[in-house]
Amino acid sequence: MKAPLSRLFDPKSIAIVGASTSPEKPGYQMVKAFEKFPGKVYPVNPRGGDVLGFDMYTSLSDIPEPVDLIAMVVPPQASAGVLREAAACGAGAAFMVSGGFSETGGDGHKRQAEILDICNKGGIRLLGPNTSGFMRPSKKLFCTFLPAAAGLKPGKIGIVAQSGGINITLAFLANELRLGISLSVGIGNGADVSVADAIDYLADDPATEVIAVHLEGVADGRTLFDTIRRTVTRKPVIVLPVGRADLGGFAESHTGNLMGAYELTCAGLRQSGAVVVDTTVALMDAAHALSNSRLSPSAAPGVGILTGQAGPGLLMTDKLRTAGIAVPEIGSDTIAKIAGLLPPLTYLKNPVDTGRPLESFGEVCTTLAQDPVVDAMLIYALHESDSVDFAEAIGAAAEISGKPCVYGTQGMNRDIGPLMKAAEKKRVTAIASPDRAATAVQALVEDARAQHRISGAEPEQSAPAVPEHPLPRSIDEASAKDFISAYGIATPKRFVCASHAEAIAANKKIAGPAVVKVLDPRITHKTESGGVHLGVRTAKQLDAALRQIDSIKSRTRKKRYLLEETAPPGLEVIVGARNDPSWGPVILLGLGGVTAEILEDVSMRLAPVGRKDALAMIDELKSAALFNGFRGAPAVDKAALADAIVAVGNMILKTPEIREIDLNPVRVYSDGDGILALDALILA
Amino acid sequence: MKAPLSRLFDPKSIAIVGASTSPEKPGYQMVKAFEKFPGKVYPVNPRGGDVLGFDMYTSLSDIPEPVDLIAMVVPPQASAGVLREAAACGAGAAFMVSGGFSETGGDGHKRQAEILDICNKGGIRLLGPNTSGFMRPSKKLFCTFLPAAAGLKPGKIGIVAQSGGINITLAFLANELRLGISLSVGIGNGADVSVADAIDYLADDPATEVIAVHLEGVADGRTLFDTIRRTVTRKPVIVLPVGRADLGGFAESHTGNLMGAYELTCAGLRQSGAVVVDTTVALMDAAHALSNSRLSPSAAPGVGILTGQAGPGLLMTDKLRTAGIAVPEIGSDTIAKIAGLLPPLTYLKNPVDTGRPLESFGEVCTTLAQDPVVDAMLIYALHESDSVDFAEAIGAAAEISGKPCVYGTQGMNRDIGPLMKAAEKKRVTAIASPDRAATAVQALVEDARAQHRISGAEPEQSAPAVPEHPLPRSIDEASAKDFISAYGIATPKRFVCASHAEAIAANKKIAGPAVVKVLDPRITHKTESGGVHLGVRTAKQLDAALRQIDSIKSRTRKKRYLLEETAPPGLEVIVGARNDPSWGPVILLGLGGVTAEILEDVSMRLAPVGRKDALAMIDELKSAALFNGFRGAPAVDKAALADAIVAVGNMILKTPEIREIDLNPVRVYSDGDGILALDALILA
Repeated sequence: MKAPLSRLFDPKSIAIVGASTSPEKPGYQMVKAFEKFPGKVYPVNPRGGDVLGFDMYTSLSDIPEPVDLIAMVVPPQASAGVLREAAACGAGAAFMVSGGFSETGGDGHKRQAEILDICNKGGIRLLGPNTSGFMRPSKKLFCTFLPAAAGLKPGKIGIVAQSGGINITLAFLANELRLGISLSVGIGNGADVSVADAIDYLADDPATEVIAVHLEGVADGRTLFDTIRRTVTRKPVIVLPVGRADLGGFAESHTGNLMGAYELTCAGLRQSGAVVVDTTVALMDAAHALSNSRLSPSAAPGVGILTGQAGPGLLMTDKLRTAGIAVPEIGSDTIAKIAGLLPPLTYLKNPVDTGRPLESFGEVCTTLAQDPVVDAMLIYALHESDSVDFAEAIGAAAEISGKPCVYGTQGMNRDIGPLMKAAEKKRVTAIASPDRAATAVQALVEDARAQHRISGAEPEQSAPAVPEHPLPRSIDEASAKDFISAYGIATPKRFVCASHAEAIAANKKIAGPAVVKVLDPRITHKTESGGVHLGVRTAKQLDAALRQIDSIKSRTRKKRYLLEETAPPGLEVIVGARNDPSWGPVILLGLGGVTAEILEDVSMRLAPVGRKDALAMIDELKSAALFNGFRGAPAVDKAALADAIVAVGNMILKTPEIREIDLNPVRVYSDGDGILALDALILA
Repeated sequence: MKAPLSRLFDPKSIAIVGASTSPEKPGYQMVKAFEKFPGKVYPVNPRGGDVLGFDMYTSLSDIPEPVDLIAMVVPPQASAGVLREAAACGAGAAFMVSGGFSETGGDGHKRQAEILDICNKGGIRLLGPNTSGFMRPSKKLFCTFLPAAAGLKPGKIGIVAQSGGINITLAFLANELRLGISLSVGIGNGADVSVADAIDYLADDPATEVIAVHLEGVADGRTLFDTIRRTVTRKPVIVLPVGRADLGGFAESHTGNLMGAYELTCAGLRQSGAVVVDTTVALMDAAHALSNSRLSPSAAPGVGILTGQAGPGLLMTDKLRTAGIAVPEIGSDTIAKIAGLLPPLTYLKNPVDTGRPLESFGEVCTTLAQDPVVDAMLIYALHESDSVDFAEAIGAAAEISGKPCVYGTQGMNRDIGPLMKAAEKKRVTAIASPDRAATAVQALVEDARAQHRISGAEPEQSAPAVPEHPLPRSIDEASAKDFISAYGIATPKRFVCASHAEAIAANKKIAGPAVVKVLDPRITHKTESGGVHLGVRTAKQLDAALRQIDSIKSRTRKKRYLLEETAPPGLEVIVGARNDPSWGPVILLGLGGVTAEILEDVSMRLAPVGRKDALAMIDELKSAALFNGFRGAPAVDKAALADAIVAVGNMILKTPEIREIDLNPVRVYSDGDGILALDALILA
């Protein structure tokens, strides 16, 4: 049985294996890191002696109690032996800074598997290898080589970084921004303790109000997804995923993980309820705002903007509107009340521009915050003089309205520093930048939206119940279409023909021109190889089509033919699904055609999705307007398309042997007229 | 004649009109702002007396010399009178903080026109109205109400902000980042002194190494374009344009300027040679790096990345690669040399990951910097201990290689502060963040590319010389096509027919099916009104087409018909041009079809463009791959398309009465087969 993670992150006793008396050695620095740790500290060195006032133990088994945490400062080759001894002594956890494991490939994988096996059997939770460790200021616990880490302040932000270097970077960034941390941990290779495990731990940690995550590769996306989904109902989770560009060998050499597809990672994270950001600063600013206050679930929270200077107000409004965040027009009552408080030249709608901030600033702020369309406030005011106490003014607005307030400012540190600190005491998020303040508000809104999406998500069962449908042994287009038909996806009327004679007979039953296709599971690129013939009307045309199909080279014993009715024109989309190595079954929707493909207009979700999520996938396409009736064209049947998306998700989920489903194109007709999947490719 | 801007930005004497002895009044604060100004200071107040040790003058004409700069602390209604007196006394410049001018609309426009007229006639340069003023630390000149501004440090960065509030925000942000400024100016309404004027001034200012610009509306884009173009051959210009989202009334109420189209603004700025950024922090980080060093013009500079921690290295590489910046593989010699300096587990290709930084860090850095594929260095190293002096190590690499180095780090301020300061002394740009360090390097690269683009731009004359071609009085499709043909743009063979009989005769001369269109300058939406008939082969079809055209309602006396040959299929694009109110004649290229239109795949340039620029417009499309032979399709005739783009630019430039040109679609054929403009709409 695995020990609880508290023995790792909240140990009462720590042993340092590889402790040294030489100040330049890591084994000394690691002992020094625990100098102020209030629990028991046991340095271990075969030669005994003492270091920094601690008695040395000659081996782990010499220590009079089973220690919670073993800090390992030993070369990779020695780690297995140490862990075996640790297991024998009943240690609860270990952390390994050293590299030389899966990130090096080859033998490293074997070495990592070996130590993981020892830990699993011995019930030891292992952090690392190849990590910077973790910092827990409230417990005076700084499990890292960096002596400066001891200066970090305790606070409400939990940090989980896949990379040890980013762990340190984020912790110091938080400190620079005067933010305290509850726990900051670097996962490294994550042989045992994963990003998801650390999130789970922080979800239960009472000191943690928000969880900030750095992500590189996603080894087990489903577990991460489930973990975040569970967590966000209690605490906000913000994620900075890395890997938009192809980083090839360098990424792999880092933690031994392959990076997943960035767009899919972002889609999976958003679906799980996380807020996704793209810089370390945005991660910390978002965590900052969300550690002070959180909005209730809402589909579209409105932001009230109050600014003492028009230019920064314009910049912030631009940022929010560009991010699709509502800066709604406020009520006429609010406008009238504010008009009575400000000089006539100011702008009063939202943003409210006070002109140079006057004594009435606080009252204006409270009035705006109380408007019913305002869910969160974004305020900017340069420190011009001491005529307005912004901390007091905005703090009062936050208290009276009960709404989150983010206060952006800029000025000399000696002026704005104390002001920002005073504002923070009133749970006002103070940030020395207009753009960064806007980013923080954006995070508040995106978290509220994510909570709303998740709370409103239909359970899987709400998808149309379908009988388990077995996948045919050999899948060609006809059997693939039979399969998807069983899941309720409409396809053109078709005839499978084993001979020219059968094809001629079938053609007579088809109204209008026929589509004649080769039916051969070995031929996946039918069109390119001359296996698709459109507009076949006459006997002569049919004969020519069949003959050309006969001439296609294939190892299939006997070719068959598929004759189909020609589908009416319609909006073409691609509906697909695949089993992703990181995220498991995922669904993809894309606009059809080469232009859309090259412009990469797609949306993605982990399967399953309900109808609401499927509709959201359509609305997420950049070309969403095409579905709603563009330039006088009729709106298309989004409901039918959504049902098909739901069905494709169910298919891949209930049929684990499917690797990939590709319905391309699917034609979507006018509202009420449904869809038709013109082609279906299933790879098992 | 206008006074030189030096009388505004480098005055020897200053008069404060509206000076006051009451400390709570702006008229007192403004005098206080000049307390340490080493030149002459003349407070003016009709009641006389003294303030802060300065004698008051009862009027401007009392002052014994013609003052350079008048600081006006008077209500808007009084400003005209003050300026008249100032002009009479030979003042060189004035600045007006007060609002109540064009930003308020209505009477404000009139009031602004009046003061501008007085200044123009009196030779006075006017900064504002509605501005925060300007700060010039090296001259101890702080023309602003903010007392804290006196703490700003002199330095190499010139700041030009359209908004007064952003001017202050940027100046304090620079200060927070320990950057000095040469001049920081808020333009406000820009009645006289514009953003372009201020850039021009800084271009000549020897203290200024880089110019950071904040832009809201662009009133005279051509002047701004020419100014930046001239400036970037001497100094880098970085611009933060605001207005991606529609900001409506608030934007207008701010400085009285309408915001131009954001995408066009960005295109125009890039074409002028500016580096475009999108946050205030990115603006300052870019200015920071470019104030320390500048790359030579280069089409694709390579960045060498050296990191002490893999995670931040991955993050930085991701940022640069995503921005399309080369992180090229380094030479085998370099790799071999570095391999000798580092432990075996490190990654050596580029990025170079040193693992925990060792004594060899400096030598590795210098070795990487000296690799010929490396033009600029991006280094990240956490402050882990004092074992490596990063300032020394990176400073040496910068000096030996002569290449710009950006050093990202993070840690406790007491540790990294002195290190960063020491690095800056060696012209190493030190930034406490991996992402922000990457942004700074990105700016170095984008500036080098911009310089290269500009240096390589063909002069206007290199466009195929065409005779001045008069625009016909009444422009219908046929005359528009004649017009564009004269500029060398190919169109389908066509016949203009005044009667059914002429149409029947023409149809016989057309090989293959004909296109029959209505010819009527009053009908601009031909297709929607039934005025376009494709695939007309038989006499019966022709008759039906002509009759339907006859039935279209129009006030044109007598309809005519256009019969054209049917063009072969090809890749469809849109080539257009228009006279933009901000930027003048601009050219637009877009992929054709409703999908591309909805996905907004366009590129833009100010006219004229040479062929190289026109080719760059094609390559800038997100769908550029379609032009190069996508999925086995042949590459298309980009050269012919580029010539058409050049021609459209020349047309609108040489024919000022044209408001808009729309060639939609233009079909582009296989390489060597040219293009055909299937439709042409010219609005004059």
